Amino acid sequence: MMQRNMTRTATRLAALALLLCAPPLAADARADEGMWTFDNPPTRQLAERYGFTPTPAWLERVRLASVRLAGGCSGSFVSPDGLVLTNHHCVHHCIEQLSTKQKDYVAQGFYAQTAADELRCPDVELNQLQAITDVTARIGQATRGQTGEAYATALKGAMTAIEKECATSADVRCDVVTLYHGGQYHLYRYRRFQDVRLVFAPELASAFFGGDPDNFMFPRYVLDAAFLRAYDGGKPAKMQHFFPWSPSGAAEGDLTFVTGHPGSTSRLYTMAELAYERDVLLTRRLMRFSELRGLLTEFSRRSPEHARIAKGLLFGIENAVKAYRGMHEALLDPALMQAKAKAEQALRQRVAADPKLAEHAGAWDAIAQAMAAQKALDHRYTFIERGAGFHSDLFRIARHLVRASDERTRPNTERLREYTDAQLPALEQRLFSTAPIHDELEIATLTFSLTKMREALGPDDPFVKQILGSRSPEQVAAAAVRGSKLKDVKLRRALYEGGAAAVAASKDPMIALARAADPEARRVRKQYETEVEAVLKKNREHVAQALFAIYGTDTYPDATFTLRLSYGKVAGWQEDGRTIAPFTRFAGAFERHTGADPFALPPSWLKARPNLDLTTPLNFVTTNDIIGGNSGSPVIDREARVVGLIFDGNIHSLGGDYGFDERLNRAVAVHSQAILHALDRIYGARRLLEELRPR
Amino acid sequence: MMQRNMTRTATRLAALALLLCAPPLAADARADEGMWTFDNPPTRQLAERYGFTPTPAWLERVRLASVRLAGGCSGSFVSPDGLVLTNHHCVHHCIEQLSTKQKDYVAQGFYAQTAADELRCPDVELNQLQAITDVTARIGQATRGQTGEAYATALKGAMTAIEKECATSADVRCDVVTLYHGGQYHLYRYRRFQDVRLVFAPELASAFFGGDPDNFMFPRYVLDAAFLRAYDGGKPAKMQHFFPWSPSGAAEGDLTFVTGHPGSTSRLYTMAELAYERDVLLTRRLMRFSELRGLLTEFSRRSPEHARIAKGLLFGIENAVKAYRGMHEALLDPALMQAKAKAEQALRQRVAADPKLAEHAGAWDAIAQAMAAQKALDHRYTFIERGAGFHSDLFRIARHLVRASDERTRPNTERLREYTDAQLPALEQRLFSTAPIHDELEIATLTFSLTKMREALGPDDPFVKQILGSRSPEQVAAAAVRGSKLKDVKLRRALYEGGAAAVAASKDPMIALARAADPEARRVRKQYETEVEAVLKKNREHVAQALFAIYGTDTYPDATFTLRLSYGKVAGWQEDGRTIAPFTRFAGAFERHTGADPFALPPSWLKARPNLDLTTPLNFVTTNDIIGGNSGSPVIDREARVVGLIFDGNIHSLGGDYGFDERLNRAVAVHSQAILHALDRIYGARRLLEELRPR
Repeated sequence: MMQRNMTRTATRLAALALLLCAPPLAADARADEGMWTFDNPPTRQLAERYGFTPTPAWLERVRLASVRLAGGCSGSFVSPDGLVLTNHHCVHHCIEQLSTKQKDYVAQGFYAQTAADELRCPDVELNQLQAITDVTARIGQATRGQTGEAYATALKGAMTAIEKECATSADVRCDVVTLYHGGQYHLYRYRRFQDVRLVFAPELASAFFGGDPDNFMFPRYVLDAAFLRAYDGGKPAKMQHFFPWSPSGAAEGDLTFVTGHPGSTSRLYTMAELAYERDVLLTRRLMRFSELRGLLTEFSRRSPEHARIAKGLLFGIENAVKAYRGMHEALLDPALMQAKAKAEQALRQRVAADPKLAEHAGAWDAIAQAMAAQKALDHRYTFIERGAGFHSDLFRIARHLVRASDERTRPNTERLREYTDAQLPALEQRLFSTAPIHDELEIATLTFSLTKMREALGPDDPFVKQILGSRSPEQVAAAAVRGSKLKDVKLRRALYEGGAAAVAASKDPMIALARAADPEARRVRKQYETEVEAVLKKNREHVAQALFAIYGTDTYPDATFTLRLSYGKVAGWQEDGRTIAPFTRFAGAFERHTGADPFALPPSWLKARPNLDLTTPLNFVTTNDIIGGNSGSPVIDREARVVGLIFDGNIHSLGGDYGFDERLNRAVAVHSQAILHALDRIYGARRLLEELRPR
Repeated sequence: MMQRNMTRTATRLAALALLLCAPPLAADARADEGMWTFDNPPTRQLAERYGFTPTPAWLERVRLASVRLAGGCSGSFVSPDGLVLTNHHCVHHCIEQLSTKQKDYVAQGFYAQTAADELRCPDVELNQLQAITDVTARIGQATRGQTGEAYATALKGAMTAIEKECATSADVRCDVVTLYHGGQYHLYRYRRFQDVRLVFAPELASAFFGGDPDNFMFPRYVLDAAFLRAYDGGKPAKMQHFFPWSPSGAAEGDLTFVTGHPGSTSRLYTMAELAYERDVLLTRRLMRFSELRGLLTEFSRRSPEHARIAKGLLFGIENAVKAYRGMHEALLDPALMQAKAKAEQALRQRVAADPKLAEHAGAWDAIAQAMAAQKALDHRYTFIERGAGFHSDLFRIARHLVRASDERTRPNTERLREYTDAQLPALEQRLFSTAPIHDELEIATLTFSLTKMREALGPDDPFVKQILGSRSPEQVAAAAVRGSKLKDVKLRRALYEGGAAAVAASKDPMIALARAADPEARRVRKQYETEVEAVLKKNREHVAQALFAIYGTDTYPDATFTLRLSYGKVAGWQEDGRTIAPFTRFAGAFERHTGADPFALPPSWLKARPNLDLTTPLNFVTTNDIIGGNSGSPVIDREARVVGLIFDGNIHSLGGDYGFDERLNRAVAVHSQAILHALDRIYGARRLLEELRPR
């Protein structure tokens, strides 16, 4: 699944795809590569390859009909009444939150027969991109001549100030985005929707048919689709721009666009960063996540209720394990690493040979040193500050309350980034969410993460001793979870509004745990920001500037969870002498049905079978260049009509973090006709069909 | 813990330590390195470094007082009445098997107050090395001029014939051992004991104090000791040779010997093999084992009974994960890999420059090709043939019954190796063991392994489809486990003795599963043996011969789970500017006691505390070069008296698979005085103390 992997480090090198293979490729050899920003669309490439030239009006319409799910996905408006198309797996969390022991919408699906039946998702925030402004010069002024911590402080101060000026009300979201790693800084201004309701979701058995075994695979047979609706002032939000449904949907060879929010790519990592990713980051994460996967699998076997409450998390962990494994395998491929090494060497030689570029020459060694510093800090930073040691919703809430009470008393530009004024609306939505929290699952994950922290730092580490004292991880977790009252949203509000005094006075054991952890967590964060992050930012900027100077700027930046346009076509691929056809059909789903999970279609499908046209296309693949975060992106045609819905990439696409290979990388989508056919013949969703009627 | 890791591939390259760092080191720079065979002891090194010369009588006595636990550990005779000293963790399996829901010897410990109270371990086999015979010439005659499958067949035929001639009765065990990778073949003849009884074991809380967090760490505070007794004709076996207890035990700087059975090392792997180990084997295994670890951890939380039945397995998995991680980290160290690469390059250049060595020149490329073949086959071989897809005691029994019924009808030299006449006594002991088998655990591990097999091979793989049909892994596992009657040892005997007809007629669902899997499992094994194993054997032999030709033979072969002698001294080490002292004392255990598992000493210790001399040494470290399989080895002094008991290596020793670093690698042992002190003051084990009385 192409959901943005929220556990990846947020800071990513912006990249120039030019360098994937040295020497830089001519544009026409670059294939359907690229995740292009809307202010720098691939106009020349589209004209040359597909004879298509997007007009400014086309680009504006596509931009405004696209939407971001702030939690890590993409979507699109598909009616004038704020109806949003996205993936089932992008709203699985909401469906689970709205479910109860008695009414399990994950298992049974959900359909609001009337507008009044639409249910509000506690945590979903939608962002519609209104404007992009170049603020590179202003940032440059603020950081000129600075290095180290002073550089980081100046940069953060300038970004925070720009965001604050822009965020004039709670429904305006403003993010300064670092593109081409500091080659450009752009201000992205969004309209924010926090009242988002669930309209339709099929049963998980259909949305995730084939389960983990089929995930990232193709041929595929899923209906990974769901509909939300954006509300404004308690009423469906009116949309001037939306994507109408195509009458026929995607056909082989068609030019296709994907508009959405790829989370992050690492196509311009230096060798030192790639080696770190391969040997430290992915290796450690794969082990930790694999263990958690086994734990949650067994947890789910205790009872159907255990399975229900753990499903969303297990789902995300399995997806992450598969994705990381694919990325790891890509980095273990000597061919990729040799090509990367050759490209880096070529660039460094050209930099060394040009006196005008002398200031950039030390960047690679500085990045390698930052990686060594990161390795030394990794366990402390990952476990103590980044949450790997305290895997618990209640702890996350407690930490936010503890930190917000302190941070909100400081000047805006001096706060930790997630507590600046521009970020508070998103924070408050999560903090005051009514999403249910389950003690058993909380205890299991908190026990696990405390145990792993003790393993990583050692039982004699002073921080570990401080947190555990003479108790076991399980005792600490059980006491904090069972004793905490933070499930009560009113209490959270009281603590948030009561500020430092209220938090300091709280006897809640989870607040106490967060308070106890905070000094060391802040210390480690500070150290990480100074020794690693600031060095990387500064020196990645040097690498980017060297690239601009030598190879020019007709390219796209690495993914940053901001709106991008990719182009491609509907096409299968060749593998081991076999041809993989680009389409699957409903008939295939029934052939694959064994009756045993995860290959069991839901009863609704089995019942509807006689009424289905089994030749209707179900899933298909395209050459569009996408990555995690593109989940829920619409696939649109030249006329900006919906012809499909991205939900995954094939197994080869997992190396897409580091490079794009048009021969093998494929985006995987639900066909637009499949959605209509299922709504009509399986779900009888008349109200929705009427709203989607192709026009 | 230094138990031999039974899951590692059995075939290992014999190695010459010379090559760890190129150019070859002079002997005196080699430090306390080496796991020396008893027919080629490090006489010169001992004389030069320690002024000690072992006499033939000394060597014979040490050899005959040493003993192997066939399941993967070492031990020693410590009385004339067959009393055996080994680690608690080496007999944990037996203690668990003898325990019941009502009487948990793992938790409570075990002590046979009288001879009649000693309880027979269902699965333990002891091997005492009687003689070593060089059979290199005979093997060479048999394989001369052969390649590929013909080479493998000739080699196996010759080895089987030699073993058969030697194994004249069930109490004689004979193994042809490949040393220096085919540089030498030696016949090891053992006296076999299958009636082995448990005499004493402390509580797990003391034997494994500190649990997984402290495993492979030092300072350490455990009593990882246990006593068995070898029986012969229903009576304690009389021993001419045994190690008497030292009056004082090990002191700092003392020369120490470790005699035991290191399982395997890989010090002479070629670069292709090291890369395979790092990028494929260890990576995949770490993920799979980590997931199983999480699963078993959560399984254990269901009830105390679940915890009891899973403890031994979880224990082994956690130990393996920690050991593999250390090995993996060693291979991720660029310094190690660069030194290895340099050594390989130097050797290859000398081979290329010498026309007399021309026949060896192609060996490295041939090994690299075999590794590529192994990678392509890895999932099928590991899951279908090597058991990773069918993790279940009942399945293992069923497969042996299915295979034995076929193999035993063939001529001895044409059978799969584990069914040759020389191997049958060991097989039959395991097959007819009365060790309990627990349905819930069987279902959990079989479900897990079938799921992982489906993940690795894909749900569309014909073998996966054949095994699962339209059922889920859990359904297949539950049906086979719950429907099987193979827990009944009489039924196993009947099927074994009934042969092919009885097995074919059996309706037992586990037998049916094993029958269904067998054709593909045999096919894959054959392919692996031909495309990988035969190529490796042949070409590793070339590498070894090139090494002998260039660097000579004053060295030791890679570990092969055969008896070895290592020398060293009692010494701490320096790390990050700190000095780690070589001893811990009883006082430290009480300081580390928090009361929460795994840092909770058992009640017996807490109660005995006032009567203890807390300055008594508890654990200590030496520079001896050991590896997994050395668990339970005695540490002896110049006079061959017990001064300690090996149970672990420090964290740095985990890289010992690939090379020995005297600055950091340390063997970790229980002090001989600690054992006496605990038997006396904590356990009141008078009968045992009397037998051990230093003389």
